[in-house]
Amino acid sequence: MASSEDSLRRALADKQSAVEAQANSVRALKAAGAPKPDVETAIEALNALKLQKASIEKDLQAAVTGAADGSAVSREAFRQAVLNTLERRLFYILSFKIYRGVAGLYDYGPPGCAVRSNVLAFWRQHFVLEENMLEVHCPSVTPEIVLKASGHVDKFTDLMVKDEKTGTCFRADHLLKDFCNEKLQKDLTISAETAAELRHVLATLDDLSSDELGAKIRKYGITAPDTRNPLSDPYPFNLMFQTSIGPSGLSPGYMRPETAQGIFVNFKDLYYYNGNKLPFAAAQIGEAFRNEISPRQGLLRVREFTLAEIEHFVDPEDKSHPKFSEVANLEFLMFPRKEQTSGQSAKIIRLGEAVAEGIVNNETLGYFIGRVYLFLTRLGIHENHLRFRQHLANEMAHYAADCWDAEIESSYGWIECVGIADRSAYDLRAHSEKSGVALVAAEKFSEPREVEKLVVIPVKKELGLAFKGSQKNVVEALEAMKEEEALEMKANLETKGEVEFYVCTLEKNITIKKSMVTISKEKKKEHQRVFTPSVIEPSFGIGRIIYCLYEHSYYMRPSKAGDEQLNVFRFPPLVAPIKCTVFPLVQNQQYENVAKDISKSLTAAGISHKIDITGTSIGKRYARTDELGVPFAITVDSTTSVTIRERDSKDQIRVDVEEAAAIVKEVTEGRRTWEDVWSSFPHHSSVSADADD
Amino acid sequence: MASSEDSLRRALADKQSAVEAQANSVRALKAAGAPKPDVETAIEALNALKLQKASIEKDLQAAVTGAADGSAVSREAFRQAVLNTLERRLFYILSFKIYRGVAGLYDYGPPGCAVRSNVLAFWRQHFVLEENMLEVHCPSVTPEIVLKASGHVDKFTDLMVKDEKTGTCFRADHLLKDFCNEKLQKDLTISAETAAELRHVLATLDDLSSDELGAKIRKYGITAPDTRNPLSDPYPFNLMFQTSIGPSGLSPGYMRPETAQGIFVNFKDLYYYNGNKLPFAAAQIGEAFRNEISPRQGLLRVREFTLAEIEHFVDPEDKSHPKFSEVANLEFLMFPRKEQTSGQSAKIIRLGEAVAEGIVNNETLGYFIGRVYLFLTRLGIHENHLRFRQHLANEMAHYAADCWDAEIESSYGWIECVGIADRSAYDLRAHSEKSGVALVAAEKFSEPREVEKLVVIPVKKELGLAFKGSQKNVVEALEAMKEEEALEMKANLETKGEVEFYVCTLEKNITIKKSMVTISKEKKKEHQRVFTPSVIEPSFGIGRIIYCLYEHSYYMRPSKAGDEQLNVFRFPPLVAPIKCTVFPLVQNQQYENVAKDISKSLTAAGISHKIDITGTSIGKRYARTDELGVPFAITVDSTTSVTIRERDSKDQIRVDVEEAAAIVKEVTEGRRTWEDVWSSFPHHSSVSADADD
Repeated sequence: MASSEDSLRRALADKQSAVEAQANSVRALKAAGAPKPDVETAIEALNALKLQKASIEKDLQAAVTGAADGSAVSREAFRQAVLNTLERRLFYILSFKIYRGVAGLYDYGPPGCAVRSNVLAFWRQHFVLEENMLEVHCPSVTPEIVLKASGHVDKFTDLMVKDEKTGTCFRADHLLKDFCNEKLQKDLTISAETAAELRHVLATLDDLSSDELGAKIRKYGITAPDTRNPLSDPYPFNLMFQTSIGPSGLSPGYMRPETAQGIFVNFKDLYYYNGNKLPFAAAQIGEAFRNEISPRQGLLRVREFTLAEIEHFVDPEDKSHPKFSEVANLEFLMFPRKEQTSGQSAKIIRLGEAVAEGIVNNETLGYFIGRVYLFLTRLGIHENHLRFRQHLANEMAHYAADCWDAEIESSYGWIECVGIADRSAYDLRAHSEKSGVALVAAEKFSEPREVEKLVVIPVKKELGLAFKGSQKNVVEALEAMKEEEALEMKANLETKGEVEFYVCTLEKNITIKKSMVTISKEKKKEHQRVFTPSVIEPSFGIGRIIYCLYEHSYYMRPSKAGDEQLNVFRFPPLVAPIKCTVFPLVQNQQYENVAKDISKSLTAAGISHKIDITGTSIGKRYARTDELGVPFAITVDSTTSVTIRERDSKDQIRVDVEEAAAIVKEVTEGRRTWEDVWSSFPHHSSVSADADD
Repeated sequence: MASSEDSLRRALADKQSAVEAQANSVRALKAAGAPKPDVETAIEALNALKLQKASIEKDLQAAVTGAADGSAVSREAFRQAVLNTLERRLFYILSFKIYRGVAGLYDYGPPGCAVRSNVLAFWRQHFVLEENMLEVHCPSVTPEIVLKASGHVDKFTDLMVKDEKTGTCFRADHLLKDFCNEKLQKDLTISAETAAELRHVLATLDDLSSDELGAKIRKYGITAPDTRNPLSDPYPFNLMFQTSIGPSGLSPGYMRPETAQGIFVNFKDLYYYNGNKLPFAAAQIGEAFRNEISPRQGLLRVREFTLAEIEHFVDPEDKSHPKFSEVANLEFLMFPRKEQTSGQSAKIIRLGEAVAEGIVNNETLGYFIGRVYLFLTRLGIHENHLRFRQHLANEMAHYAADCWDAEIESSYGWIECVGIADRSAYDLRAHSEKSGVALVAAEKFSEPREVEKLVVIPVKKELGLAFKGSQKNVVEALEAMKEEEALEMKANLETKGEVEFYVCTLEKNITIKKSMVTISKEKKKEHQRVFTPSVIEPSFGIGRIIYCLYEHSYYMRPSKAGDEQLNVFRFPPLVAPIKCTVFPLVQNQQYENVAKDISKSLTAAGISHKIDITGTSIGKRYARTDELGVPFAITVDSTTSVTIRERDSKDQIRVDVEEAAAIVKEVTEGRRTWEDVWSSFPHHSSVSADADD
C-alpha cells in the first residue's frame, strides 16, 4: 500500500505545481489585458487541473485511510458491541467506579470472576498437574535487592515527557506514534519522502534511545495533547509501584512486576525438593503490578493483572523433552524470524518440523509451544486468529537463546498473550552473584572423570610484602579470575615478568610480578559436573487471554421475532461462568419445587448454575443466559420430565427429571458430547419455547 | 493462681524483712562482743530464715511460671516439631531466603501451595457455589479516597516507639506487655500490689490510649530491647503499605488492608446484577497487606496474606434466613459475652438456642456461624479446639450490632481465624457520603403507603439578599439537615423568630430568620421504602486457618523398628496436597510401566499424585509421604494387582491394576469411605511392606 500511496503523493505534488503554474498564467493573461476568450480558455484549463488534483486527493485519502479505516471502523464497532455486553453483564467493572475509577484498574464482576477461576483451574490442570510442576505462592511485596539483581530497578522503565506547564505526564513513544499516524493518515500535503520517514519512525519506535526520541519530538514540534504546551526532554520512569517495608522507611520495596523472581530465589530449595534432579518446572499464579504512565487499550494494558508463569529448569547441554512426540504432529500458524524480515506472512508449520529444522531452538521450548497451543485452543481461542511469532534478534535480550510469543488477533490487532522464552542461565546467575548463594545443579558421574583444571595459587608472603593491608583484596581478586583471564596473565607473566591487574575492591590497578602467583594446569578427578541450569519460561497474561477469548466467543444473532440482535458468548463449558440455568416454564409452585430439586442435585454434583423463577418470558430468560455464555438451560415444563437446551444450536432434548443433573454434568465435564446426547434422547420442538421472546 | 501467687509474694516479703532483722541482730551481737555461743545461735537462726526464704522463692517461682511454663515448654516443643516438618518439606519457605528474608513474608512451597489451593477451592464450593454468592476480584492497589471513606487512612494504626539513638521501631504495646510478663514471671521481689497492677495492665493493654501507654512506659522505665536506649513517646504508625498511582506523584494509593472495600464500592452494580433484590452476598478471595511494625508469631502475623471475605447484604428490618433450620441443630463451643465477663468458660450450645435466646443477634448471623463451623471442621480443624467467641462491648465498633470470632486453639493459644460481624449499615453509608452515590436498596410496596414527611424549603430570594454569594452554601446546608435538626429549627424559629445555624462549607455560624425557610410536615404517598442495607461480614484469614490445620493434623508415631519417631499429617483427602503416591515395590521395568499406567489414569481422573521410582525402601517412601499428609499410596508389587495403603491406619487392600485409580478417586472425593473399601477388598498384610523402614 505504501508504494501506491507514494506515487499518489508524487502525482498530487506535481498536480499542485501545475495548478499553481496555470494560476500564474491566468493572472499574467489578465494583467496583460489578453482577449477574453484566451483568459477563459486558461481558466477552464485551471479548473480542469483543480478537478484532477481533487481526484488525486480523494484517491490518496482512500489509500492512506480508506481500506484500513473501513476495517478499523468495523473492528471498532465490533469491539464496542463486545465491551457493551461485557460491561452491562458485569464481566468487568471499572474499579472504584463510584469515585470515578482509576485508569488501568478493573474489577472482574461475578461472571468475569468465574471465567477467571475456570481459566486458572484449567491452567493448573493442564500445566501443574499434568506436568507435575512445583507450584509456589510468593508475596507481591518484594525487597529492593531482589529486583536490583533481576535488573528491574535499573531497567524496567518507559520514557516519559512532561507538559512543562501543567506537569501532566505522557509516554514519549506514544506521542511520537500518534503524531506519525495522524500525519500519515490526515495530512495529504506531506511528500512521499516525509511519509517514508514517518513510516520508518513507526517501524523503529521501540529501538529509539531517550536522546533519539527527544530529537524526533523537537524536530516535529510535538507538543502536549490538549494544552499544546511545550514538552520536557524524555526521561526514564520506573514502572514498578514503590513502597516501604516496615516502619523505619529504610527498607524500600516494590510490588512485583512479574511472579518469576519468587521462583528463581527459591531454586535451591525446589531443586532439593525435586530430589536434586533436573529437569523440573516450578509454577506460580499471582498478581503482578506495572505503574503504567498513561494506560491505554482498555482491558489489555492495566496496572494490576494476573500472571501465570512457569520456570522450567533444564540442563543447558540437554534440552530434549521426553514428551515432545506428543505434540510434534500439531500444526498451526507460526511466524519465524526469517518470514518476518523477508516480508512474508505467518504460515502453518508442523511443530516437529519446526524443531527438526532448527526454527525453534530446542525440543523443550517446542514442547511448551505445543502445550500453550493446546491450552489456548481448548479455552476457545480460535486457531485462525492465533499465531506463534518468533522474536527478532533485536527484540530479544542478549542472553536469550530463543523466544516465541503466542499472539492472539483481536480488534486491537495481534496481541502478545503468552511469552515463551529460553532465557538460558541469566536469572539464576544474576541472583547467585547478588546473593552469594550458588544456584547451581550437579550431574553426578557414574565414574569419576579426569579433567584438566587451571589452578591459581597466590603467593601470600610476596603479596603481603608488596601490598601490606591490601593483601587480602589482591588474593581474592587473583583467585576470582576466570580461566581465560588467568591464562592471559600466565602468558604475560612468562613473557614480561609482570602485569597490570585491576582489583575491583581496591578500585585501582596494581602490578603483579611473577613471584607473586603461580598459575598452572592440574589434572583432577571430578565426580560431578556443576552448572547453572537454563530456564525456559512460558509466561501467561491471563487477563489478556480472557479478553481475547471474549472477542473470539462473541457473536450476534437475530431474535426469533427478528426485531432485535441478541448477544451470545459461545464459551466452551470449561470456561463458561455458569454451566447451567434452571427455569420453571411458568410461575407455579410444583415447577418451582422440581427446579429446586434439580438445583440441589447440580450443587451436589459441583455444577455451578443459576435458578431463575422470575415470571419473565422463557425466550427472554434464554437470551439473558446466552449473553452470559451459559451453555445449557434446563426448563421445567412438567413434574416428570424437563428439557435441556444447548446454547448455540438452540436444540432441546427431553429427559426425566431425575437424570437432568447427571446429563448436564457429563456434557459440561466433556465426558459426553452434545451430539451424543442429542442422538440419545427425544427432541423437543423449540417453536413454542423461543417464540415468545 | 494469682491469689496463691499473691500470698507467696507477701510471705516472701515478710521473710525478707525477718532475714534483714536477724542479720542486723547478728551484726549487733558481733559489734557488742557478745559471747560466741550467742552469736552462733543467732547465725543459725539467720540461716534457718534464709532457707525458709529460699523455699518460698522456689514455690513462688513455681507458681508464676511453673504450671504455665510446663505446658508452655511442651507447647513450644510441639510447635517446633510441626514447624521443622513444615519447613523441611517446604510447606513454607521464608520469602527471599537467599537474601536473608524479610520479616513477616513467607512463601507457600509446593505442598503448602497445594493445601492453600484446596482450602480455597473448598471455600468456593462451600460458600460461593452452595450459597449462590456473587464473587468478584478487585485490585489490591487502592486510591486514597476509598480508604479515607472506610476510615483506614485515619484509624488503621498501631502505636509505635522509637529507640531514640538507633531509630529502631517497636510496637509500644508489645514492649509494655513483654515488660509486664517478664516482671511477673522472673522478678520474685515485686509486691503483691505491683503484681496486681501489672496483671491489670496486661488485661487492659488493648484499651490504652497513646498517652496512657507512654505514661506506663515512662513509669516502668522501659527502654529499647538490646540497646537499653531511651524510647520516644508512642505515636501512631499507619499499617498500610503506601504507594503512588501513575507517574505524577499526585495520586497516593495503598495496598488494600482487606478485600471488603472492593465489594462495598460495587454495591450498586451488584444489587442491580441480583435483580435489585435483597438479601444477596458478594464474596472475594485475595491478598491483603499490613505493614506490621515488627511481625511476631511466625506464620500467624504476616505482612501479606490471603483473605476470603463475604459481604451479605440484608434488609435491617428482616435478618431471618431461609436456610437457618439446616444449621440450627449444630452444637459446638460458644463463648458468649456473659460467660466471659462473669469469669466462666466457653460451653457447648445448640445454635438454634443461641439465636432463639438472643445470644446471637439474628438468624443470618447465626446461619453464617453454623456454616463457618461446618467449613472449619470439614477441613480438619478439631471441634474441641474451636470456639466461637462473642466480642465484648468494648471490642466492637460502635456501629456493629454483634460480632463473633471463630477462634482456633493452637500452640500460641486461642487464635482469631474468622471474624463474623454484623456491621449494620456503616460501610455503605460511609461510601455513600464520600462518593455522593446513593448505596441503597428499595422495597417496593404492593400498594402505595401514605407517610408523613418533613419538607424543608429554603426561600432563595430572602437568603440571596442576606448572604449574597454564600446563598448556595446556605441552601445546601438547610436542605441537608436531618429530620431531628429541622424539627428543632422549626420550633426555635416559631418561638424566637431566628436561630444560629452552622454551615460547614462556610465554616461559620449564620443567623437564619423565620422568613428564610419554611419547614412543614406533608403527607405523601410512597411506593417504596428506600434504605441502606445492613451487611453481615464473615472474614476468613486463610493463612491462619491453614497454620492451625497443620497443628491439628500433625502427630508422631514410632517407626516399625521403633528406633525413630515419624511425622504424619492426618489431612482429610479434601485438604491433602497430593492425594496419592504410586510406588513400584522394587526397581523393575514391568512394575514401572504399571505405575506409569496408573499415573496416567489418575491424571485423567484429575487426582493429584506423585510417582516415586527411586530405589528407596518402601517403608521410607511411606514415611516420606506420611510427612506430606498423602492419604493413599498405591504400591505396584505385581503386574495384575496392586495394594492401596491408607495413611493413618496403615491398612492395605489388594485391588486389580485397572480399578486402582477409580477406587482412589472415590475415597478421595468422599463418595466412598475407607471403611467401606476396607470391607470390600482382600486385605494385604503390611508386615513385609512396613518392616524395612
